Amino acid sequence: MSFVPAGLIALTSDFGMRDPFAGIVKARILGRFPAARIVDLCHGMAAGRPDLAGFWLARCWLDFPPGTVHLAIVDPGVGTPRGVVLACAAGRLLLAPDNGLLPEALRHFAGTSWRSMDAELPARLGVGELSRTFHGRDLFAPLAAELASGALALEEFGPRASPADPAPVPAPTREDGGIVGRVVLADHYGNLFTNISAELVASCRQPSVELQDGRLLPLLTTYGEAPAGGACALINAFGLLELAINGGSAAAGLNLGEGAIVRLRDGLRT
Amino acid sequence: MSFVPAGLIALTSDFGMRDPFAGIVKARILGRFPAARIVDLCHGMAAGRPDLAGFWLARCWLDFPPGTVHLAIVDPGVGTPRGVVLACAAGRLLLAPDNGLLPEALRHFAGTSWRSMDAELPARLGVGELSRTFHGRDLFAPLAAELASGALALEEFGPRASPADPAPVPAPTREDGGIVGRVVLADHYGNLFTNISAELVASCRQPSVELQDGRLLPLLTTYGEAPAGGACALINAFGLLELAINGGSAAAGLNLGEGAIVRLRDGLRT
Amino acid sequence: MSFVPAGLIALTSDFGMRDPFAGIVKARILGRFPAARIVDLCHGMAAGRPDLAGFWLARCWLDFPPGTVHLAIVDPGVGTPRGVVLACAAGRLLLAPDNGLLPEALRHFAGTSWRSMDAELPARLGVGELSRTFHGRDLFAPLAAELASGALALEEFGPRASPADPAPVPAPTREDGGIVGRVVLADHYGNLFTNISAELVASCRQPSVELQDGRLLPLLTTYGEAPAGGACALINAFGLLELAINGGSAAAGLNLGEGAIVRLRDGLRT
Repeated sequence: MSFVPAGLIALTSDFGMRDPFAGIVKARILGRFPAARIVDLCHGMAAGRPDLAGFWLARCWLDFPPGTVHLAIVDPGVGTPRGVVLACAAGRLLLAPDNGLLPEALRHFAGTSWRSMDAELPARLGVGELSRTFHGRDLFAPLAAELASGALALEEFGPRASPADPAPVPAPTREDGGIVGRVVLADHYGNLFTNISAELVASCRQPSVELQDGRLLPLLTTYGEAPAGGACALINAFGLLELAINGGSAAAGLNLGEGAIVRLRDGLRT
Repeated sequence: MSFVPAGLIALTSDFGMRDPFAGIVKARILGRFPAARIVDLCHGMAAGRPDLAGFWLARCWLDFPPGTVHLAIVDPGVGTPRGVVLACAAGRLLLAPDNGLLPEALRHFAGTSWRSMDAELPARLGVGELSRTFHGRDLFAPLAAELASGALALEEFGPRASPADPAPVPAPTREDGGIVGRVVLADHYGNLFTNISAELVASCRQPSVELQDGRLLPLLTTYGEAPAGGACALINAFGLLELAINGGSAAAGLNLGEGAIVRLRDGLRT
Repeated sequence: MSFVPAGLIALTSDFGMRDPFAGIVKARILGRFPAARIVDLCHGMAAGRPDLAGFWLARCWLDFPPGTVHLAIVDPGVGTPRGVVLACAAGRLLLAPDNGLLPEALRHFAGTSWRSMDAELPARLGVGELSRTFHGRDLFAPLAAELASGALALEEFGPRASPADPAPVPAPTREDGGIVGRVVLADHYGNLFTNISAELVASCRQPSVELQDGRLLPLLTTYGEAPAGGACALINAFGLLELAINGGSAAAGLNLGEGAIVRLRDGLRT
């Protein structure tokens, strides 16, 4: 599926909403491509964490229509000589610093082609000297604008190349007695996303979920099946085992955060 | 006033800005209706509180032009068999879970017609299996897209039906010596919105405002009439009695929050 | 460079994202000018601080294309008789309360022409009675809509007039042994922006950066040159000396905030 630009740019970053960083990127895109339609996917990615941005992007980049250019900026190496990569997958383009963000996002997708930015490209596009702290404005905004407008073709971006290794979110491991997973993130509601997939849960005939303090959580199908204020585990909308409290925050109520161990056991095996 | 779609969708939710939930809803809308114009009304509604979302929506849904589709997602019952309701009022459509949010928002508006989603509608629209935790993405986004594009007519949505009771924000009561109201919410500035209307205040010939600790606040007309750092009460832009501190946060400075009692007394009566 | 409206409105405010204030302003703009393209520059400006909003706007208003109308609402004097000013600069319009925000934003730009709103203009535009707490909705949204659509010409806005004095961000001073600057703000990452310009740093032959407790920070060019967790100073993308911690928050790690003193010394002079 080749890329046919739809004029649509989806922005993902760790800029937050407190400063005008995301707005400035939009301004620079509009300066080059006035008809651009810019959608905020999210600017709340954890600061300086390409792994978590990749984790989220993996779960939603395909929700945007073909022809979308995804621009993902979580760039702790800004100003250093890290490269810039472009992925083409399922008729979408994904543009980001070459820090493992996109390889993590596309880890489970077959059929991605990768290119690395030609060092001469910025000059050819009339991009001036780059600042040392804000390549989103100085470099990525013009690149995304030119790709989304169709003025810059995929082949002109640079040579085919392998991107940096994925910035990895840890994978669950198998141990005696079951699967050992971890909390990947707490969302806005305090729901705890784990790295244990629905498929792993489905592979247990009698699954149970155990926290690191030995507490067991009931495995339910909706928040509403737990009593008000009660903790549970369920398969969330992103195909992952999630820890939740009905009407509350599991992060606060269970006092757990990123990295906390979650064990999935199969009652018929142990 | 019948509904003529303007291609405009206004989003209200408790998704927050930290995770990509709002962005994913936009992506799914654009996938079905690429020309959609999507405006964020607000994603900062209190988590799991249809009452407060209804309170806010009541005060701004009419600010959007006729032809707007309002999609309001505060959905603590996601995944349970709660219904989906559509209201048509003043040439706008309002779509939400059937949990009292919209009835609270439209409580004071005469002339709303209500419909309940036909259980077969998702299948007719090609909506696949729903997740248990994110119907905003799986169900509400496609419904809003089809309504806003005009592809789905109001009559096709489902039968006329009464919605669930309003998720009520408490009303003030009359007691000896005046009106007993409550703080409904603290806004971003720390201003405290009460449930006491401008009309109630106007019905007093010599109104005074008393907090639960007996402190009296002067009733002024603008923040700037109070001394810097001084507390006051005034009628805010939403027609409600508000407690404020000029240049500061009343929530912090008065140490009050949701539910705090505020008494309105009439000096000529007591 | 005269103003030719591009239908684009850029919003800057201290509304935050928790309440629907920014969404309501957008609704009212769309009601008057349905084809408006509205971009959020930022709604996270410090509450009630026209100086800091002016500081930020100075550093990004030109990033938007000519034809843009900037609407900047940080309005602690809302409801009082403060005026409304319109600036025309480099083919953009900038509209704000007359409280020094725009003069601070345009302090270093030559060639701005200023107008003050004619008191009769709101009535001529059909703007009704104003609330006392939300002129963004009641007054500024309609004004911006009419300017951005081209229905209201610059000359019709009101007479040429001088705006209020700038709401000033403090300037660095020269003292024995160097430049005494201050931290202006901490951004979302905890990076500390100072008021010391790149030019001042460049004027030192052997610059060093000293905090108020006497600690010296190395002056580097990128975050990545510092060791992980290490503090440094550098010239940021806005041409200012910035204090940072590689992979962390300087605000937290150095325990500094707005107003903290930062000394720039020239080793060849002291």
